[in-house]
Amino acid sequence: MSTRRAIGRTVWVIPEGYIPPSSRGPAPEMLSHETACLLNTGDEPAHVVITIFFPDRDPMGPYRVTVPGRRTRHLRFNDLSDPAPVPRGADYSSVIESDVPIVVQHTRLDSRQAENALLSTIAYGE
Amino acid sequence: MSTRRAIGRTVWVIPEGYIPPSSRGPAPEMLSHETACLLNTGDEPAHVVITIFFPDRDPMGPYRVTVPGRRTRHLRFNDLSDPAPVPRGADYSSVIESDVPIVVQHTRLDSRQAENALLSTIAYGE
Amino acid sequence: MSTRRAIGRTVWVIPEGYIPPSSRGPAPEMLSHETACLLNTGDEPAHVVITIFFPDRDPMGPYRVTVPGRRTRHLRFNDLSDPAPVPRGADYSSVIESDVPIVVQHTRLDSRQAENALLSTIAYGE
Amino acid sequence: MSTRRAIGRTVWVIPEGYIPPSSRGPAPEMLSHETACLLNTGDEPAHVVITIFFPDRDPMGPYRVTVPGRRTRHLRFNDLSDPAPVPRGADYSSVIESDVPIVVQHTRLDSRQAENALLSTIAYGE
Repeated sequence: MSTRRAIGRTVWVIPEGYIPPSSRGPAPEMLSHETACLLNTGDEPAHVVITIFFPDRDPMGPYRVTVPGRRTRHLRFNDLSDPAPVPRGADYSSVIESDVPIVVQHTRLDSRQAENALLSTIAYGE
Repeated sequence: MSTRRAIGRTVWVIPEGYIPPSSRGPAPEMLSHETACLLNTGDEPAHVVITIFFPDRDPMGPYRVTVPGRRTRHLRFNDLSDPAPVPRGADYSSVIESDVPIVVQHTRLDSRQAENALLSTIAYGE
Repeated sequence: MSTRRAIGRTVWVIPEGYIPPSSRGPAPEMLSHETACLLNTGDEPAHVVITIFFPDRDPMGPYRVTVPGRRTRHLRFNDLSDPAPVPRGADYSSVIESDVPIVVQHTRLDSRQAENALLSTIAYGE
Repeated sequence: MSTRRAIGRTVWVIPEGYIPPSSRGPAPEMLSHETACLLNTGDEPAHVVITIFFPDRDPMGPYRVTVPGRRTRHLRFNDLSDPAPVPRGADYSSVIESDVPIVVQHTRLDSRQAENALLSTIAYGE
């Protein structure tokens, strides 16, 4: 029952994503946060590449994130900025690829209620 | 770590579905939207066929949708109209079949809260 | 792309279940409904057996349900009565077994909001 | 259709976890409970070991729990105390390992609404 081996998959998909438009002012910006929780149970760091897909334009990316060995990272899509911020007010999907197995859960937080969440699902992994 | 290959499965199932009856007037119609988010990571377009199942009548369909290569589509069941609209006020289930691998997530949006969602789960794929 | 074959698995598990106690009066009874949505895409009827597990007593069952071919059934655990109603105010889990493949989704409905749901997940299938 | 065999997997992962900080006083402490529902359908007891992972420190554990044969256990992370309570106000992930197959569902309860839940998903199993 070792927990140091790398559990999970190397490709994860979250089809559903949406960040409210900034044109609605600062309040709605604070209401909802799309989060991908990435767990790396192995000893080696996970080098993660995220690609964002849209309905009507080419995919954006790669966004690069590292999750150290035996660490978790709760990643907010609102915070992604390089190569460019994720567009507000647009439907998107994300593909999360890692060089070592990880496990990914998609959660939408509603910060009006002190870290309560509105929805959550284990992503699709293969 | 290419994202251009087609990730996913070709058969997806969402057992739970419900669109509020229109007899309750326009307001409840706006409250809840059943959505299937379809991501096609491959280069080829995905030709998708949706079949709707009911408790007490024969299935309806096929509903035909195309998702271009490297694009996502957030499909609202309320918008399906050909061969016929999905009946309001009735429980239904949906089967989503594609000629190339895609990934499907089921989400119920509550539009009273600016695109917040009430529930979400990766569909059953095989 | 036929939808008449039986899609899914024959064993499904929903670890989380809870029906509010009736001692709180009729109102809370109406607030929340545990639902298992069962889809049978095949032509043959699905003979389903449900077993309910508890923290501190032997399992209850079998509860027997039939889902006709090419039909869906949205089953409320509140309605199960034979061999006995599911105890109120107690944590439980359910195992759903079928003689033909089906797909099962667990949903908790909050009837205060006209069939909105609070949570949903595809059950564990094998 | 026996339900006495052990259904499930022996390794389960819940990437998303958060317990509100106690510094906000007793009320928020009561609002949200992270729960892992563990079902053991087999005849033998399940000896379960839980390890908690963090963004910025070494994992904590092992937390040891037993689920008797043919029983379910709805485990609240708030209640884990040995070797140490799960830190409040910190993101975490959990790995749940068992010596016999079990099935695990992650649920966040909001106790303001009489055991209603905010989110739920079957954990990642392998």
